[in-house]
Amino acid sequence: MRVLVLSADNFEDSELLVPYYRFLEEGFVVEIASMKKGKITGKHGYEVGVDKTLEEVDADRYDLLLLPGGKAPEVVRKQPAALEIARRFFAGNKPVAAICHGPQTLITAGLLKGRRATCYWSVAAEMKEAGALYEDSEVVVDGNLVTSRQPSDIPAFMREAMKLVRK
Amino acid sequence: MRVLVLSADNFEDSELLVPYYRFLEEGFVVEIASMKKGKITGKHGYEVGVDKTLEEVDADRYDLLLLPGGKAPEVVRKQPAALEIARRFFAGNKPVAAICHGPQTLITAGLLKGRRATCYWSVAAEMKEAGALYEDSEVVVDGNLVTSRQPSDIPAFMREAMKLVRK
Repeated sequence: MRVLVLSADNFEDSELLVPYYRFLEEGFVVEIASMKKGKITGKHGYEVGVDKTLEEVDADRYDLLLLPGGKAPEVVRKQPAALEIARRFFAGNKPVAAICHGPQTLITAGLLKGRRATCYWSVAAEMKEAGALYEDSEVVVDGNLVTSRQPSDIPAFMREAMKLVRK
Repeated sequence: MRVLVLSADNFEDSELLVPYYRFLEEGFVVEIASMKKGKITGKHGYEVGVDKTLEEVDADRYDLLLLPGGKAPEVVRKQPAALEIARRFFAGNKPVAAICHGPQTLITAGLLKGRRATCYWSVAAEMKEAGALYEDSEVVVDGNLVTSRQPSDIPAFMREAMKLVRK
């Protein structure tokens, strides 16, 4: 299994690191893509290496897309390459797991219309405006899409993400 | 399954949070014990609630003991109640998972003599002096004991801890 993470500086550290280590525990390959190579730094100071630029990513080579939260999605959602990657996962009906502010990238990509989803409370208004069927739940699964609200939802988020990727 | 975490302020955030969320994903009960109730804060600023004081812990009610690293073990190892809890787990041959500086509590409790184990590089000297058979590996499993060196070892650490607790 191959997991792709889209993020940038000021990611929410636990929302990137917990799934990252969890997927590695499972023996998955996990690659992090961002605007440029080098390192990205989380809000709490954790650093992770960037494996690929967004332009270098071949979305077809991955089985799951992870979109962690924090301030990073505000920047990621402005990158056309990131939106194309997200659309490619949806077109292939492949698992996409987004938490907190992570769904913002899916909103901008126009992928949530008519889809059941959740997100951080402050993102709920724009999620609804984008046509999503917003729910205030620890995790919402709608087909290929798993979404959660915040770090405390990580156990439910990972439980459902693991189920999807094992299908 | 019931997991007990012994820690204090200045814990290494990822070494506490990743296993914490992982065990909750699995449906386990996880309780955090420290010197006093309230909250403890990690080196990177994450806060977790304290469920029990060390004196309130009945070690027999738990199936696994987790000892995360950071600066916390320097304080935890000075608490007689923490040492008694660790000894109780060893006496019952129940799983104990310690990472980074976490094994310091086991060193002070006199539990590592003749045991294969690892730890953060700066703890290696005192681990050897305590009679442990130190190995510089991402994870060392010796009977009920799982040890690792640092955050990047978390995938191997959790893989082996999950195997032990499922036995």
